Amino acid sequence: MEKKKEAGLRPARQDEAERVMALDLPPAPLSDAMKAYFAKCEEKIGFVPNVLKAYAHDSAKLEAFVAFYNDLMLAPSGLSKLEREMIAVAVSSRNRCYYCLVAHGAAVRTLAQDPVLGELMAMNHRAAALEPRHRAMLDFAVKLTEASSTIEEEDREALRRVGFSDRDIWDVAAVASFFNMSNRMASAVDMRPNREYHGEGR
Amino acid sequence: MEKKKEAGLRPARQDEAERVMALDLPPAPLSDAMKAYFAKCEEKIGFVPNVLKAYAHDSAKLEAFVAFYNDLMLAPSGLSKLEREMIAVAVSSRNRCYYCLVAHGAAVRTLAQDPVLGELMAMNHRAAALEPRHRAMLDFAVKLTEASSTIEEEDREALRRVGFSDRDIWDVAAVASFFNMSNRMASAVDMRPNREYHGEGR
Amino acid sequence: MEKKKEAGLRPARQDEAERVMALDLPPAPLSDAMKAYFAKCEEKIGFVPNVLKAYAHDSAKLEAFVAFYNDLMLAPSGLSKLEREMIAVAVSSRNRCYYCLVAHGAAVRTLAQDPVLGELMAMNHRAAALEPRHRAMLDFAVKLTEASSTIEEEDREALRRVGFSDRDIWDVAAVASFFNMSNRMASAVDMRPNREYHGEGR
Amino acid sequence: MEKKKEAGLRPARQDEAERVMALDLPPAPLSDAMKAYFAKCEEKIGFVPNVLKAYAHDSAKLEAFVAFYNDLMLAPSGLSKLEREMIAVAVSSRNRCYYCLVAHGAAVRTLAQDPVLGELMAMNHRAAALEPRHRAMLDFAVKLTEASSTIEEEDREALRRVGFSDRDIWDVAAVASFFNMSNRMASAVDMRPNREYHGEGR
Amino acid sequence: MEKKKEAGLRPARQDEAERVMALDLPPAPLSDAMKAYFAKCEEKIGFVPNVLKAYAHDSAKLEAFVAFYNDLMLAPSGLSKLEREMIAVAVSSRNRCYYCLVAHGAAVRTLAQDPVLGELMAMNHRAAALEPRHRAMLDFAVKLTEASSTIEEEDREALRRVGFSDRDIWDVAAVASFFNMSNRMASAVDMRPNREYHGEGR
Amino acid sequence: MEKKKEAGLRPARQDEAERVMALDLPPAPLSDAMKAYFAKCEEKIGFVPNVLKAYAHDSAKLEAFVAFYNDLMLAPSGLSKLEREMIAVAVSSRNRCYYCLVAHGAAVRTLAQDPVLGELMAMNHRAAALEPRHRAMLDFAVKLTEASSTIEEEDREALRRVGFSDRDIWDVAAVASFFNMSNRMASAVDMRPNREYHGEGR
Repeated sequence: MEKKKEAGLRPARQDEAERVMALDLPPAPLSDAMKAYFAKCEEKIGFVPNVLKAYAHDSAKLEAFVAFYNDLMLAPSGLSKLEREMIAVAVSSRNRCYYCLVAHGAAVRTLAQDPVLGELMAMNHRAAALEPRHRAMLDFAVKLTEASSTIEEEDREALRRVGFSDRDIWDVAAVASFFNMSNRMASAVDMRPNREYHGEGR
Repeated sequence: MEKKKEAGLRPARQDEAERVMALDLPPAPLSDAMKAYFAKCEEKIGFVPNVLKAYAHDSAKLEAFVAFYNDLMLAPSGLSKLEREMIAVAVSSRNRCYYCLVAHGAAVRTLAQDPVLGELMAMNHRAAALEPRHRAMLDFAVKLTEASSTIEEEDREALRRVGFSDRDIWDVAAVASFFNMSNRMASAVDMRPNREYHGEGR
Repeated sequence: MEKKKEAGLRPARQDEAERVMALDLPPAPLSDAMKAYFAKCEEKIGFVPNVLKAYAHDSAKLEAFVAFYNDLMLAPSGLSKLEREMIAVAVSSRNRCYYCLVAHGAAVRTLAQDPVLGELMAMNHRAAALEPRHRAMLDFAVKLTEASSTIEEEDREALRRVGFSDRDIWDVAAVASFFNMSNRMASAVDMRPNREYHGEGR
Repeated sequence: MEKKKEAGLRPARQDEAERVMALDLPPAPLSDAMKAYFAKCEEKIGFVPNVLKAYAHDSAKLEAFVAFYNDLMLAPSGLSKLEREMIAVAVSSRNRCYYCLVAHGAAVRTLAQDPVLGELMAMNHRAAALEPRHRAMLDFAVKLTEASSTIEEEDREALRRVGFSDRDIWDVAAVASFFNMSNRMASAVDMRPNREYHGEGR
Repeated sequence: MEKKKEAGLRPARQDEAERVMALDLPPAPLSDAMKAYFAKCEEKIGFVPNVLKAYAHDSAKLEAFVAFYNDLMLAPSGLSKLEREMIAVAVSSRNRCYYCLVAHGAAVRTLAQDPVLGELMAMNHRAAALEPRHRAMLDFAVKLTEASSTIEEEDREALRRVGFSDRDIWDVAAVASFFNMSNRMASAVDMRPNREYHGEGR
Repeated sequence: MEKKKEAGLRPARQDEAERVMALDLPPAPLSDAMKAYFAKCEEKIGFVPNVLKAYAHDSAKLEAFVAFYNDLMLAPSGLSKLEREMIAVAVSSRNRCYYCLVAHGAAVRTLAQDPVLGELMAMNHRAAALEPRHRAMLDFAVKLTEASSTIEEEDREALRRVGFSDRDIWDVAAVASFFNMSNRMASAVDMRPNREYHGEGR
């Protein structure tokens, strides 16, 4: 009864409904490779990430995106998978990209087995208790996000000073740059994260 | 064994240790009223929020803060408690205040019984599916946060058009303004949220 | 006669009319404490500051505001009252808050017996000839105003280096944070400064 | 005795000492025209504005500046002298130019015989009670100051709609543009305003 | 002789020397596909773009990049190749990416057979005389670059109103997003454009 | 035939038509001095720069502008003419002024006999290979453009450290400040560059 009396308006439940994005683009027939990839997603994580469903309106684009993404985030690198996800979330935080914060925040929580680290990356990486390596890596990624034209040799030197090789610097830059693309793509078409992400790694 | 081989450095667990803030200010003796208030916190939510422990270095400041805060967030108003918490989180998102995002994000999740709404307020309120009332309320709060000197009669009119009274506008403004104070206070002294908040309302 | 010929349009006199703010909120009956406080204002400075009249639509809010404000600006502190007013004006300058610049600019002029100091705080504190203590104090306050999420231990250390204790740092932060609230409240409701302020301390 | 006990440090009096600017550039011999002009300044306003003393290290530069300035601010125009000074102050406010705010703030106060109008132009023109003509004029000047590359035909149309001719638009633009130069010149060399300005028109 | 007397220092000739980027990453052996692709570049445009040489330190990354890029810029689309290059340059202008402005500025000049259009895209697209379709397309791309989290349905509607289909909107977004990645990658490693670009299409 | 099939819309040729600016201000009769000056322009560079035609609606304004400009850019100085043009272009790049980028970009290319230097100044001076003198000079000019109120003694010291005298600092500041005026004037009235500039110095 008291509820009824409360002032204000109750917000609708945020259902993350079936809609994948704001554009009306029906899925194209998947290539066999992509069919297999989607099946693998279902098997491994229980669902197909909506970003893949969004690209699936054009099978060539989907394949190119998946190849590019998997090389970036999963190929051998001087950066661990978790470090790459930390960059993804810190960059997505600057761009306030809802899709990527939800999906990659879940990845940080799960890979780190530390829900708090995921929150810190999404909210303000400067508030985290980080090793110099990670602080330098994230500072570079955030500067590249916010003021890329001011990056100079001194910024690369700062990464070398904490032990990153030139190849590692490429990878830091590549991940940070990619999420500046992906954040914008997601915002441009209002991509909606799969509901499953929210509970992962809590 | 594969773990050992992984590249990179594992980040330390983010422990949200006992430290309440970065300033070394020992707690002052609490007044009876504040003793009772702290006891009530322990009883109701299981812990004393660190913001209160931070203010507790000076009992007069603590009392003034508690009185101001409780009137703002709990007194009768045309805005529900949840609406006030939604403003708190949307403002804290613009200011990237880790303490307030964690503490008040938990409040939104709990009051709304909707973890997704909490994430949306913290990440990007524009990505949420909101009633016009809530969208206007949050747009005003965010504009007041980012460009307060450009607020004009038209901005107040936009609130009136979705049904807010002049008294309601005062309350929207007061909550948004308060968190512009509180976010800065928390960042200035590196206030750390109680670990309990992270799991609430998930 | 030449006047008549002049081109352009003469701006209306800026009367700072009786209107206290843009919201139509009639004053509530004052509590005895607040009646006494208003009487004391009339006696000491000759008028009741409009910010108090604005809060007077709700006596509980008025009392909470007055208690909070008086502790902040008048209680014993390692910062002098003038130093607290200098912070108030420098912060209000960044937020371009007309009400606070007028009211607290007057306070700086009067407390310092130096009208030029008031102008410098309102226009650009970097142009003033300041002791390292005051420069560091104002730089911290302005950074907290403009980019609070980037405040880190180094910023607190900069205050310690010029002699501020941790308790002083709390007070610098508290005053700067408060005016980030108060500036926004004043802008949100278009609070108008009492005309008397303009001539004070000239 | 109470004074001694007060906490904090008393700021030095802001003397606006004899120094004209931060560069060490001795005055060059004045041409006869400039000698006469300086004498006229002394006679009419009681002092030579420091901006002229700053340019006086090079007589050719001084003459070019004076000619340009006097045409801009004093030649016949569809804008009154006061309107041109209002633009000067509103632009200088955005650029936080101490010299120009002091010198031209005095001009607005004096020409308008309204000290409050001067404060409003220096603090936040949006808080002033202005005719549509003046609001449009200042909005254009401020936009030109802050985001000149986004000015388009619609911005010029907004001036035409409140009655400005194309020639008037030139003059609004010319005054706003000039103070974007003059503000920067003053800040670049830390030009100090003559003390006399502070009291004028109060 | 007069040259000798001139004041100042002559800047060194900007040689766009052989250095491809600031990272020391030796090229990896190319796959046959990439060998053929490089040969095709030499044949068609006379040189291998440095961006490809930069990625060539890792053949898998090079292949993924080339596949992604070629689908984006060359695959059938409702946008012409020139329109895609116009987006590339307008985005690169906001990010001040030297490599991309040079390389894609050349593409606009050549495809449009209009050197002035290339300059306008690189300098300020708002100064160009554009059809509503192109103005809307570039405004969307620039907003996505500068403030992606504020893109909403209304922004997509603005594209639909000038005739873009939902699939076209995807392509506008994809090109704009890609160059937000590519600009950052180029700035992160100080990629140097091939000298040949400068003279193309003049 | 393939052309017909291509998707998209071909942008109109950017003709830099005869229109000098967006304001309809007929030229006033030129003074003899200005007639001679226009004739000298035609003789020396083959055309009258449109900025002069724009000012020619008022002969007194034209004369004041020409005198001011010629002293600034051509009078003896510790800065070479090329150095002054480099400042002009770097400043115009920050303000995205199409007219000045085209006209003064041509001047840099021609004076330096290096088209690449012109591009670098227009696109991002940080990407150029510059002597410390030029880097410091341009950094000062750009800071003065973007954040003039934060210029302090340390910024002037940085210029002195690379060999600039106080008089040189005046000249750096004067050129940078002037183009902050000129960029805004050009944008305010949509000044169009003469077509001839585009090909100069390529």
